[in-house]
Amino acid sequence: MRIFVTGAAGFIGSNLCDRLLADGHDVCGWDNFSTGQSGFLDEALKNPRFRLLRGDNLDFCDLAAGMAGCEMVCHFAANADVRRGFEWPERDLQQNTMATFNVLEAMRKNAIRRIAFSSTGCVYGEAPVIPTPEDAPFPIQTSLYGASKAACEGLISAYCEGYGFHGTIYRFVSILGERYMHGHVIDFYRQVKEHPGFLTVLGDGSQRKSYLHVRDCVAGILYSTDFGDSLPTNGKFRIFNLGVDDFCSVRQSAQWICEEMGLTPEIRFTGGDRGWIGDNPFTYLDTGRICGLGWRPDFSIRDAIRSTVRWLAANPWAVKAAR
Amino acid sequence: MRIFVTGAAGFIGSNLCDRLLADGHDVCGWDNFSTGQSGFLDEALKNPRFRLLRGDNLDFCDLAAGMAGCEMVCHFAANADVRRGFEWPERDLQQNTMATFNVLEAMRKNAIRRIAFSSTGCVYGEAPVIPTPEDAPFPIQTSLYGASKAACEGLISAYCEGYGFHGTIYRFVSILGERYMHGHVIDFYRQVKEHPGFLTVLGDGSQRKSYLHVRDCVAGILYSTDFGDSLPTNGKFRIFNLGVDDFCSVRQSAQWICEEMGLTPEIRFTGGDRGWIGDNPFTYLDTGRICGLGWRPDFSIRDAIRSTVRWLAANPWAVKAAR
Repeated sequence: MRIFVTGAAGFIGSNLCDRLLADGHDVCGWDNFSTGQSGFLDEALKNPRFRLLRGDNLDFCDLAAGMAGCEMVCHFAANADVRRGFEWPERDLQQNTMATFNVLEAMRKNAIRRIAFSSTGCVYGEAPVIPTPEDAPFPIQTSLYGASKAACEGLISAYCEGYGFHGTIYRFVSILGERYMHGHVIDFYRQVKEHPGFLTVLGDGSQRKSYLHVRDCVAGILYSTDFGDSLPTNGKFRIFNLGVDDFCSVRQSAQWICEEMGLTPEIRFTGGDRGWIGDNPFTYLDTGRICGLGWRPDFSIRDAIRSTVRWLAANPWAVKAAR
Repeated sequence: MRIFVTGAAGFIGSNLCDRLLADGHDVCGWDNFSTGQSGFLDEALKNPRFRLLRGDNLDFCDLAAGMAGCEMVCHFAANADVRRGFEWPERDLQQNTMATFNVLEAMRKNAIRRIAFSSTGCVYGEAPVIPTPEDAPFPIQTSLYGASKAACEGLISAYCEGYGFHGTIYRFVSILGERYMHGHVIDFYRQVKEHPGFLTVLGDGSQRKSYLHVRDCVAGILYSTDFGDSLPTNGKFRIFNLGVDDFCSVRQSAQWICEEMGLTPEIRFTGGDRGWIGDNPFTYLDTGRICGLGWRPDFSIRDAIRSTVRWLAANPWAVKAAR
């Protein structure tokens, strides 16, 4: 199948491209390189079944032209900076909500009806049910990132109803592993590199989070995606949480990072039960739906964190380049 | 209190302005008159505490300037045409989602933190729980209108979390009564006026819907709005369903309309369990939360429908002007 991947040079997008190519698909990668790294596509670019287009989802005409001839879209481009959303409120709206609308309209223009979308566990806000299932109570958004991703989900599901699209939404926990360049592991890693004596952690360290290795993430997506040749006329909309059946505290994860680095800095907590406004003190998704299909992650949270630290250690350029 | 009302010349907005003025508030009405009717503000304009500004929510600078000096925003401007959303997919995104973002940013610029928002029961999609409570399962959108209103709710709740806003969301069933100019009552009324022998009804007539009279709607909003002078620094986000504790079939409602008109047309059903793509075959909201505050609607569904027909009969210009 010929697949159009937005955010192809991103963390998850580039891992997805590699795996799609390995599985024999043709891939057209699309990225504006605002945060994407061309180096992440070095392997893909050696493959004659891969084509790379540089472009922005907000340029509708280019996007629609780029998609021509594809049969499916994996829409993985996004602003993924949850924490700084309130410093720049238009960003999530533009780069996530408006961008997704353009992707859907470009698909409609090209008669492409199959889409996989990278959403997030943030859409649950501070979920009243933990572990949180896909049909948790009507969410109350606590971040502009979560609000924008929920808006994207709403658009995709309406397109399934109104235009016969076939959409699969993946709500991720935080993803770790090779090519990870944004989040607490890199923050902690960089701090400890700069001053091995101490590590400053936002909050009181009690926040509980769940993590998934990017290889498990991509495997979960491919495991549950329907690549069948024909699609029924009426639309279909599916949602899967993607994560491990576990969580850890920020304190634990700081310890694992330091362990892997072979250092024992003093950990200084800034205090409070969350790291920033909109930070969710407890994220843990119920993955029963996708596990019911037979998928299982290979990496524990600890292994995912330690593997990420090893990748950072082997790629100092990434630590330097990371936002 | 000085209150900024968007959609002031609209159906619900103009009724709200009248009621706010009657309660002694100062009101600044804002409307782009795309569907608003200046005649709806005839009474308000006689009141020295009312000021009318013509402007569009998509013109951010005008909007922010117009809001200056107000203490609260009632954001009631919207594209309210659920049915034709898939014919013009950009409309709900622009006039609802983007417009609401502008309203929120204009508030932030003016240090206004209090907002009441007209949402809709459509945000529940085809709810698996009926009557549907505010914390129903995570919704799956079936219309672009519902998707856009859910996106607005997400933005407002994130602004409450991130910027200390105080937001109250009202999820309405369909509203009827004086100044009603869009929906099935006017469609049926116009048809029977044009050809008293028959009435064509979309679907098989079995769709079950709930309706609320606009006077009850406005009363419910004012009943549950906190007009207190001071606001705590941390934000607060509340959601209320607004409706009657009842529903009726489209067949019944057609009969009540014809009864009130004194005519007995043959009713012809087009067939199928819904009137159009995205039509919800059963809408019935659980209003226990707002009723728990002591509010009760005065109008039954039948009375609301008959009162609407009487208003249409007394205002033939409205029937002519209605979309």
